[in-house]
Amino acid sequence: MKTTTGKGAGPDAVLDTRERIVRAASRLMQRQGYDGTGIKQISQEAEATLGSLYHFFPGGKQELAVAAIRHGDEEFADILRGALESAEDPGDALVACTTTLAEILRASDWTDGCPVTATALGTAGRAPDIQQAAAEAFARWRGLVHAKLTAAGFADDAARDLAHTVISTLEGAELAAQVSRSEEPLHTAGRHLARLIACYR
Amino acid sequence: MKTTTGKGAGPDAVLDTRERIVRAASRLMQRQGYDGTGIKQISQEAEATLGSLYHFFPGGKQELAVAAIRHGDEEFADILRGALESAEDPGDALVACTTTLAEILRASDWTDGCPVTATALGTAGRAPDIQQAAAEAFARWRGLVHAKLTAAGFADDAARDLAHTVISTLEGAELAAQVSRSEEPLHTAGRHLARLIACYR
Repeated sequence: MKTTTGKGAGPDAVLDTRERIVRAASRLMQRQGYDGTGIKQISQEAEATLGSLYHFFPGGKQELAVAAIRHGDEEFADILRGALESAEDPGDALVACTTTLAEILRASDWTDGCPVTATALGTAGRAPDIQQAAAEAFARWRGLVHAKLTAAGFADDAARDLAHTVISTLEGAELAAQVSRSEEPLHTAGRHLARLIACYR
Repeated sequence: MKTTTGKGAGPDAVLDTRERIVRAASRLMQRQGYDGTGIKQISQEAEATLGSLYHFFPGGKQELAVAAIRHGDEEFADILRGALESAEDPGDALVACTTTLAEILRASDWTDGCPVTATALGTAGRAPDIQQAAAEAFARWRGLVHAKLTAAGFADDAARDLAHTVISTLEGAELAAQVSRSEEPLHTAGRHLARLIACYR
């Protein structure tokens, strides 16, 4: 159970503060990247003191980025799971997924792309734990697609390969849509992924 | 004609200094993003004074980022053009393209991904000229794929749509390969793009 205000002295309030910090870090890094986001801005956006921020994340920004990526991982997994469950046919489900992603992207005025990419990009080499969290996110999303495909009767090998390309294409189409401020790359990707999957039937 | 040292008083030397600055900015922003890259680091890496940097780019980092994206645009266009010309069949050519991208990525220890994405991501909203340069890059790359497909006999509409998904998938697979430090997403994407294109024959 969560409090709505985040105030009060119970364990719910403590949970809420941490959650608010992670959500703020996730949203800011999604929009501005890791280096573009400062600890102070996160604390302001989360309405949490710097003290409480360092209480929950003694490792500072880098530790927060890992938590932000895990939050983004869950967020995208929920969208993907919802879309995959919305239709029996995996191809139809992926079209639904690109439609949802396009709606979210447009509603955010093209700022809220993949909740993991902007945070992870540019930290390669200097922050292996951030990189690792991003790799785990991609692997989990592929796992959801793989499960949908095998449940629909695809062979394990084909499902595994297709899951790679589904997630890569969704990622790239979201990026292209964001850059060009247009839903078209996502809608086109949805249709093509459905077609590709049908080829492997 | 270019001098190799960048020293001397002729127009070649002037060209060289500007070129060195743009290349340094492009490589650093590709690896560290826009916010992770400072003007000082660019001037050091380019072996150019801050004075000459501001001489060529009075608009500072933002103007440099636009030039860096245009440089990355050309760089990727060259790779893509080379791969597209390497085989008659567009599908085979795209497989060659993913192989080349995988080699470059591995050789850079997974740091040199798309030369445009990291620079453009996170600047949406605050730097429309950076965003615009990135959108032009994506459009140019799609144009190369579109031309290859129409030359191979594809209908204009199908070629246009496929070009969208080819570029989105290459982008996303490069990102996935970078994050997971594995060539697999790229090789898989190459095979699947060839298969998708064959579907539209």
